[in-house]
Amino acid sequence: MAEHEHEHEEITPQSEDFSRWYVDVVRRSDMADYTSIKGCMVIKPYCYALWENVQHLLDRRIKKTGHKNAYFPLFIPESLLKQEAKHVEGFAPEVAWVTHGGQNELEERLAVRPTSEAIICSLYSKWVKSYRDLPLLINQWANVVRWEKVTRLFLRTTEFLWQEGHTVHRTDIEAQEETLKMLEVYKSFAEEDLAIPVIAGEKTARERFAGALQTFAVEALMADGRALQAGTSHNLGQNFSKGFNIKFLDEDQIEKYAWQTSWGVSTRLIGAIIMVHGRETGLFFPPRVAPIQVIAVPILFDKTRSMVLEKLATIVSDLEETIRIESDTRDTYTPGWKFNEWEMKGVPVRLELGPRDIQAEQAVLVRLDTREKIIVPFSQLKSEIPRILTEIQHSLLERARQFVSEHTHRITDYKEFQEVIEQERGFLIAPWCGNPDCEERIKEETRATIRVIPFEDIGHGDCLICGQKKASNVYFARAY
Amino acid sequence: MAEHEHEHEEITPQSEDFSRWYVDVVRRSDMADYTSIKGCMVIKPYCYALWENVQHLLDRRIKKTGHKNAYFPLFIPESLLKQEAKHVEGFAPEVAWVTHGGQNELEERLAVRPTSEAIICSLYSKWVKSYRDLPLLINQWANVVRWEKVTRLFLRTTEFLWQEGHTVHRTDIEAQEETLKMLEVYKSFAEEDLAIPVIAGEKTARERFAGALQTFAVEALMADGRALQAGTSHNLGQNFSKGFNIKFLDEDQIEKYAWQTSWGVSTRLIGAIIMVHGRETGLFFPPRVAPIQVIAVPILFDKTRSMVLEKLATIVSDLEETIRIESDTRDTYTPGWKFNEWEMKGVPVRLELGPRDIQAEQAVLVRLDTREKIIVPFSQLKSEIPRILTEIQHSLLERARQFVSEHTHRITDYKEFQEVIEQERGFLIAPWCGNPDCEERIKEETRATIRVIPFEDIGHGDCLICGQKKASNVYFARAY
Repeated sequence: MAEHEHEHEEITPQSEDFSRWYVDVVRRSDMADYTSIKGCMVIKPYCYALWENVQHLLDRRIKKTGHKNAYFPLFIPESLLKQEAKHVEGFAPEVAWVTHGGQNELEERLAVRPTSEAIICSLYSKWVKSYRDLPLLINQWANVVRWEKVTRLFLRTTEFLWQEGHTVHRTDIEAQEETLKMLEVYKSFAEEDLAIPVIAGEKTARERFAGALQTFAVEALMADGRALQAGTSHNLGQNFSKGFNIKFLDEDQIEKYAWQTSWGVSTRLIGAIIMVHGRETGLFFPPRVAPIQVIAVPILFDKTRSMVLEKLATIVSDLEETIRIESDTRDTYTPGWKFNEWEMKGVPVRLELGPRDIQAEQAVLVRLDTREKIIVPFSQLKSEIPRILTEIQHSLLERARQFVSEHTHRITDYKEFQEVIEQERGFLIAPWCGNPDCEERIKEETRATIRVIPFEDIGHGDCLICGQKKASNVYFARAY
Repeated sequence: MAEHEHEHEEITPQSEDFSRWYVDVVRRSDMADYTSIKGCMVIKPYCYALWENVQHLLDRRIKKTGHKNAYFPLFIPESLLKQEAKHVEGFAPEVAWVTHGGQNELEERLAVRPTSEAIICSLYSKWVKSYRDLPLLINQWANVVRWEKVTRLFLRTTEFLWQEGHTVHRTDIEAQEETLKMLEVYKSFAEEDLAIPVIAGEKTARERFAGALQTFAVEALMADGRALQAGTSHNLGQNFSKGFNIKFLDEDQIEKYAWQTSWGVSTRLIGAIIMVHGRETGLFFPPRVAPIQVIAVPILFDKTRSMVLEKLATIVSDLEETIRIESDTRDTYTPGWKFNEWEMKGVPVRLELGPRDIQAEQAVLVRLDTREKIIVPFSQLKSEIPRILTEIQHSLLERARQFVSEHTHRITDYKEFQEVIEQERGFLIAPWCGNPDCEERIKEETRATIRVIPFEDIGHGDCLICGQKKASNVYFARAY
């Protein structure tokens, strides 16, 4: 709806200025925009369709692992938020407070949920009575609000959309299994559906969720070499069950505090998709989540115009049951303009149809990742297009894997670390002794943080800062 | 997850006390509950699954009519809300206000959206430039907050979920067409998917949406004879486009104010489903939206136990691609207890499987609306169950139509009106002159309101109050 005003707006090339490229490409492609409310964005239809696909695919995985969706209130009374001490300490500075309802001042102010542990735990304490009620496996799709000082479209906005899982278990072992299972769900979702390779592992105490025992994350690498936390999974231990009195009568007739987890991903993922797959002057969407998988552009001449439009309509209506296809039949633009436009908007495949193609009973498909042209007989479109989309999906993941591997550096000493982080960014695998002071000093001096402590052993060395021997390697990066 | 505590809780029969029945049935079936936040409910998994089905089916209809989904901010600055005078007048008393972000008081307080016309129009005024940008057809699924004094689960809650469509058009004719098209979408959705017959028509000025030119609604009749507004569609005229400066350059090069509509349905519909299809001591869900369409209950004996469970698992996994089927294999309950439990929870069909059924290669299906038993060979389950579900869906609509027809009374004078509204409730078709004073007096004296002025001519008579001749018949009812 806004092409007209943007017709001549240029996109800053990615290689020239990544941040400006990001803002340009998001706005120019009509994905999102800021509003007059500080840090609040509007997710426009083209982008919301992407989010719906993301939601749909992730929701399926969440349900397949036994979770059910529910909906909890937006508001959390201040007293509830305070019931877990570290939790409120972590979130209070970011809370938007409702103080008035209609004309009346409220007796107790209400937090607009920054996350829902407090309200959900207050209900779980009523729902959970017996070991038979466990495990309790619930997920919620919702909006949340965090009063951020510095905001960036999708990556850090005052309001954002997310899913948050909240589960209750009988034992610490079950809770830990759940925490890691959901981390694995996020990992396979990111890699298989979003074509974004991720590193999974544990966060350091410094980066832990407020109130959690352990926080795990999947970390992705953006095209500018900065890392982005793509999803987190927390083992809450008994911190919340003690704060909110979630107890159950176990089979042995002893009353016990329950064990809990929570885990979430958000509209940040949209930022990740843009920054992993974007091209020099445009977007590129993985077919599995692309709002439009195939854009059909007719080549129109006066004489054959109605014949081409008619045939195209037949083709599109035949394909749209199985493929997200749209046709751009606008008169006001040339085919060339449309090619550029939809390429910029990240559609993975273009279908061209002109009068000569109709004579030959074929259409021209163009893979927009490689620009390869593929001539396909009409009769084979229905089988060929899904095959091409799958190929693109795989090759995007391969390309991204290649990028991560080229931008992962094994570092043994601090001087090298400082040079690489400054000049090349990417993931830096380097030894850390486990001391928060060493972690802090690295952050202050290089702006690099420990992204994850990986599960598998990836070698060791002398701690970058204190030199302690046999310190385990961890993943560092500058991050969004 | 909470059956245990409720095991012996009785449900007040519907015929004894409808309001208590409603609360009992909602809580006992684990659909929803109040929380510690005034008027805020939690939608539990069993009910949220119903809402997801409702959403899915309605979303498809909304998209099929050319609308796209988007997401707009939760917060609306007070100054924006004030830009359409009648709108703010109507909504200000119900607004929850955010006054603080983190530790800081905000310069301008923010409304938690009670509806999104203001924020959306402020963006549309930037997006709409030319007649080529029109029509703009956008829908949003979101949570909204209205600070209600008296609340009732689903029907009137402080926070609720809904969809709100907001469209912009070139002409008043197009806007009116859109308004009525969406009313028709709501009507067919209610009747075909929810099996709820509705009366469509226009609202009187008194019941009009704050800021609209005309409001239309679909009205349903609950089993207690009270009406419920099930969906509304507003022709906003140019009220908002003038308030928010939404102008476009028309083909004739003249700048014009745009014409707009908005329309919505909410989680109220869940209340309607419960109150239309509920039975004496339980729920009943129309198959198209039922969270569980078929509940499979094994008849277990020690010797044949594993054989029955195994066969049931095969049957369920074979059916679950096409049908929402679950099996209740819990050891802690008898088949009889399970039959009652799932009947109370509104599942439309039960599948029973015992050792003798396996020998005969058949399962027993029970239609829970009629209690009819149908013996179906294993090989025919896949075709037979969908057929039965469709039949139930149709017969629910027929049953509800019958109820409306039996509870619709043609009234000619006010004394009869007063008697019928007191003793029988239902829809009262009666003549009204169009004067708001007559409407107001009827409301004060009988608590009946004009639900809709129908589109078709349904006769006329002397106005109930002032006696004016040839006053058109309209629909009255006491309403939720």
